[in-house]
Amino acid sequence: MRFHAPAAERTDDVVELPHDEARHLIRVLRLKVGATIRVFNGRGSEFDAVVAAVSKDGARIRIGAGRDTVPEACVLVTLAQAVLKGDKMDDVVRDAVMMGVAAIQPLVATRSEVALAALERGHRWERWQRIAVSSAKQCGRAVVPAVLEPRTFKDLSVSLAEMTLSGPGLMFVEPSASTDALSIGDLDEASPRETTVLIGPEGGWAAEEIEGGATACRLVTLGARTLRADAMALVVLTALFTRWREL
Amino acid sequence: MRFHAPAAERTDDVVELPHDEARHLIRVLRLKVGATIRVFNGRGSEFDAVVAAVSKDGARIRIGAGRDTVPEACVLVTLAQAVLKGDKMDDVVRDAVMMGVAAIQPLVATRSEVALAALERGHRWERWQRIAVSSAKQCGRAVVPAVLEPRTFKDLSVSLAEMTLSGPGLMFVEPSASTDALSIGDLDEASPRETTVLIGPEGGWAAEEIEGGATACRLVTLGARTLRADAMALVVLTALFTRWREL
Repeated sequence: MRFHAPAAERTDDVVELPHDEARHLIRVLRLKVGATIRVFNGRGSEFDAVVAAVSKDGARIRIGAGRDTVPEACVLVTLAQAVLKGDKMDDVVRDAVMMGVAAIQPLVATRSEVALAALERGHRWERWQRIAVSSAKQCGRAVVPAVLEPRTFKDLSVSLAEMTLSGPGLMFVEPSASTDALSIGDLDEASPRETTVLIGPEGGWAAEEIEGGATACRLVTLGARTLRADAMALVVLTALFTRWREL
Repeated sequence: MRFHAPAAERTDDVVELPHDEARHLIRVLRLKVGATIRVFNGRGSEFDAVVAAVSKDGARIRIGAGRDTVPEACVLVTLAQAVLKGDKMDDVVRDAVMMGVAAIQPLVATRSEVALAALERGHRWERWQRIAVSSAKQCGRAVVPAVLEPRTFKDLSVSLAEMTLSGPGLMFVEPSASTDALSIGDLDEASPRETTVLIGPEGGWAAEEIEGGATACRLVTLGARTLRADAMALVVLTALFTRWREL
């Protein structure tokens, strides 16, 4: 069983497990002092560890030898995903972490049926961060991708120009939205070092969003298929990683 | 609104809608005689149509002009998917239809935690057929892929040799299962005319299944990633269609 131990840095350190992880170790798995476990720190390192102390409130572990980790993708992808209806965004975060993104930027787009204030009231950002941890645990990654603070598309577009420093972003659009859109097969086979991938909400991007995005991004389309909005991220990430020989 | 009208063949025919579709037309959308709708027959044709008669029990429509349809994939993929736990197979059927498979073959593998008899008692086959229709409606396809009668992997493997007539099947395995497994990037870029794609259950294929499959299939792996069993079909189909330039 792998536990998330953000404080794990060096062999022989004794560190506290986060509350949720300690609870799982003590209450669910009923592990005792001396039990051996595996931990990952969410920044790419993984270690053997031994339970050093348990109490009602927490668990301390002693970090053992470093272990090999599952290799990360060579290309650092930030998924900038427009917030979807209901709890569909939860699945998108889970899937994106599983496929190997470096970070997730939730966006409030013109046609997202939710406002930043509502996300905040619903503690959605915190929820997505917890889902990222739990997905990293399940899929064996030693990295927990950052879930960035939700922002509006308008706010992001101010910094879109910065993206061009590390190569253009890739904005996914309906084929009807632009006659200039590339297909996956048109993209360079050599992967960029990093990129931002923009995926719209259920109703698609507004015309002015595409216009704004096109100044710093390549417009890309998946062809005539109509895909569910909550499946787009998984399909897009798989297609890009296939193109870039990461799969 | 598109309705599924399997009896629609020729312009000017008057045909009955299936019970579920008629119910939706009458009770939910409250359409009357004379209303214009769009219908697809599930075998690749789509038409304008006019509601000709409604009663308590059904609806008859007059078929109008044929319409252009969303292009189908050039490669005919049969997804042979080992039955998953709970209702996860429902999502796999929905996703596979959306991505453009030609047919779905549910398999009971050694590690599927369900028997053929239980599938039958639960009317799961009928359920998956209904899901295929509803997914085709949602994603705009004019073809409803056949959901074939569930069979055991052992039973399928008898006919695996037949597959080789149309090119080898592709059996997806864990990287640890075989040192000979290809990656997606090793597959020929030219798509076959048709192929069968085999995906295992949560616990993976049994050793003897891989041995049997390897006689008629290429073994393929997605690399070090650990993917959720219910996301495998979507990821595998996307990766193959990207490789074959169908996306």
